Amino acid sequence: MKREQIAEQLEKLRLQIDATDSQLVHLLQQRQELAARIGAVKRQLGEPLYVPEREATMFMRRREEAQQLGISPDLIEDVLRRVIRDSYQQQQAADVHLQGKQVVIIGGGGAMGQLFAKLFSNAGAKVHIIEPTDWAVAPTYCQHADLVLLAVPLTVVEQVILDLPVLPPSCILADLTSVKELPLAAMLTQHSGPVVGLHPMFGPQQATLAKQLVIACHGRDEEGYRWLLQAIEHWGARIKFIAAAEHDQAMSFVQVLRHLSSFVYGVHLAHEQVDVQQLVELSSPIYHLELMMVGRLFAQDAHLYADIIAANPSHFKMLRRYVSVFDKILEEFEQGNKADFIERFNKVRQYFGELAHKFLSESQRLLDVTSDTK
Amino acid sequence: MKREQIAEQLEKLRLQIDATDSQLVHLLQQRQELAARIGAVKRQLGEPLYVPEREATMFMRRREEAQQLGISPDLIEDVLRRVIRDSYQQQQAADVHLQGKQVVIIGGGGAMGQLFAKLFSNAGAKVHIIEPTDWAVAPTYCQHADLVLLAVPLTVVEQVILDLPVLPPSCILADLTSVKELPLAAMLTQHSGPVVGLHPMFGPQQATLAKQLVIACHGRDEEGYRWLLQAIEHWGARIKFIAAAEHDQAMSFVQVLRHLSSFVYGVHLAHEQVDVQQLVELSSPIYHLELMMVGRLFAQDAHLYADIIAANPSHFKMLRRYVSVFDKILEEFEQGNKADFIERFNKVRQYFGELAHKFLSESQRLLDVTSDTK
Repeated sequence: MKREQIAEQLEKLRLQIDATDSQLVHLLQQRQELAARIGAVKRQLGEPLYVPEREATMFMRRREEAQQLGISPDLIEDVLRRVIRDSYQQQQAADVHLQGKQVVIIGGGGAMGQLFAKLFSNAGAKVHIIEPTDWAVAPTYCQHADLVLLAVPLTVVEQVILDLPVLPPSCILADLTSVKELPLAAMLTQHSGPVVGLHPMFGPQQATLAKQLVIACHGRDEEGYRWLLQAIEHWGARIKFIAAAEHDQAMSFVQVLRHLSSFVYGVHLAHEQVDVQQLVELSSPIYHLELMMVGRLFAQDAHLYADIIAANPSHFKMLRRYVSVFDKILEEFEQGNKADFIERFNKVRQYFGELAHKFLSESQRLLDVTSDTK
Repeated sequence: MKREQIAEQLEKLRLQIDATDSQLVHLLQQRQELAARIGAVKRQLGEPLYVPEREATMFMRRREEAQQLGISPDLIEDVLRRVIRDSYQQQQAADVHLQGKQVVIIGGGGAMGQLFAKLFSNAGAKVHIIEPTDWAVAPTYCQHADLVLLAVPLTVVEQVILDLPVLPPSCILADLTSVKELPLAAMLTQHSGPVVGLHPMFGPQQATLAKQLVIACHGRDEEGYRWLLQAIEHWGARIKFIAAAEHDQAMSFVQVLRHLSSFVYGVHLAHEQVDVQQLVELSSPIYHLELMMVGRLFAQDAHLYADIIAANPSHFKMLRRYVSVFDKILEEFEQGNKADFIERFNKVRQYFGELAHKFLSESQRLLDVTSDTK
């Protein structure tokens, strides 16, 4: 065949691809419409939006079908997951009925407070927002409250609890603070009704609660605060119970240590006058991801990070131990001692066990997505 | 309507969703088939697989169409990107013609050496692999080589270069080491023909070079090594030229500092006997991602990391400065000095400029994907 003819053939195939892609857009629109109708029917039945078993079956069937047709089962599962995420985002709102509930959100002007205010309000609850500046109205709003939710900064949460007016006996008292032990104890002292500590494991920029995690620390009267947890589950979140002390212990590693070491990394890059834009251009997907994890910190709230790190003096001790391990390991390098590094490496590999490989393959999946968009 | 009737309606809608999804699988199969045919035609024409402009136009058209139909433009773009990734992976192999070329890969038994050996071999080149144990064959293989590619560990690369037999004047000498200044200088001294230093910014687990980055440091005779870079580009990678010293400087921050701080983080978790499984269960997507970045290190090659960190004594000085900044900042916290933290934070925010927000939104996209698979 002549070159021209081949080029013509290429053009024809491209038109066919475009037509297929257009069909794809229409098919996705059709699917989103069906999903919206399913959402409406589920609401009538009072069924939850997210049914893990149904989803698993769906993926299994399509994977099998893909295999039979000779295309990648992972491809169809990834595509379906992406499509389903959109459906959740559109349907989640109207799924919870809280008509008649009075909800008071203290600190409702903050980003996380606003997110919950919107959720409750969309569900039909009457939402009152109290800011520290209009504390005088607190007794009025609180006297008929079914839920008082604290969305105030970590540093003031205890004082706010102490200043609360007396709440109705059946009113739930709950907080959204990233530290759980102290606020929970304070709430239990202040209020004799249902108490639960919550830690939403997502940022206020989250468009929907679907598949997000909310950690719950039991305070008092599980029956009494059940409707709150049910609403959160209906919005799509998973709830995981854990003791407050255990929560704070775990968070000191993940939150405190990661935040501070990313922070120091950023400070160091600035001190060394590194050209970040150049780093980005020279980055593999994995380095790009690591830079993102550092840089994104500085687009967020300095006070929140400072408060989380300073929340407990035990954090400083743990961080001191980290610095001294860093110092020790660097010293071994300076002395040309590679063997110690290898030995430490192998010990930590054992400590992570199978998780190390799991993390490697999971992150590879993410890197593939980063590469898609490059 | 009765509850039973509504439930029946739900069942019907679910069957319709299943039928739509099945159509989706068939449509994707059809698209992959068309893409494979396009790949074959492009090979006949000798055109590159990845044409950024064509891709951009494709996305733009489908986004517009989605908008008109009332579905999310991001949804269709994400889906198409995912589908296209699969096409690349299936087509990349047969796109380069190196019949008649003799390629010697020294250290071809390592993971990265194997990856390139496969690429060259699939492209029709005659590939000879030399390991340090069969060095005696080096003169025989090298005397007719068109390319000698060094895929040996950082610590031995200089010695291997010094030990090379004389190469034909038109033979390309290239290396894949993560440090570029010293090997490049050594290669230029050893060989009088074309020389280029390469740093593939991806791991050997990468299934395809499509959209990956290869950093290139010019040595000698750009004309002479052009066919090598063209092959790499045809395999789908982008090539970025940079001076060797500048490369090493940038990498000391991204590679060295990130590797070591992730390493120390892992050591610290092990020392503190943290239950990693519990951390995973308590993780938000962002913490999960951060844990993954630490844990994945320990599924990889300890020696490679040790060698990268120890490659240059200047690294230790830079790391010392990092430790002392960490120490200083922790001291400020211990003294209850929040104001200093806020001030530092704001300075680094300025330093990152618009990138901080860009990183935040980019990482949000990644987190959405992580949540999809939860």
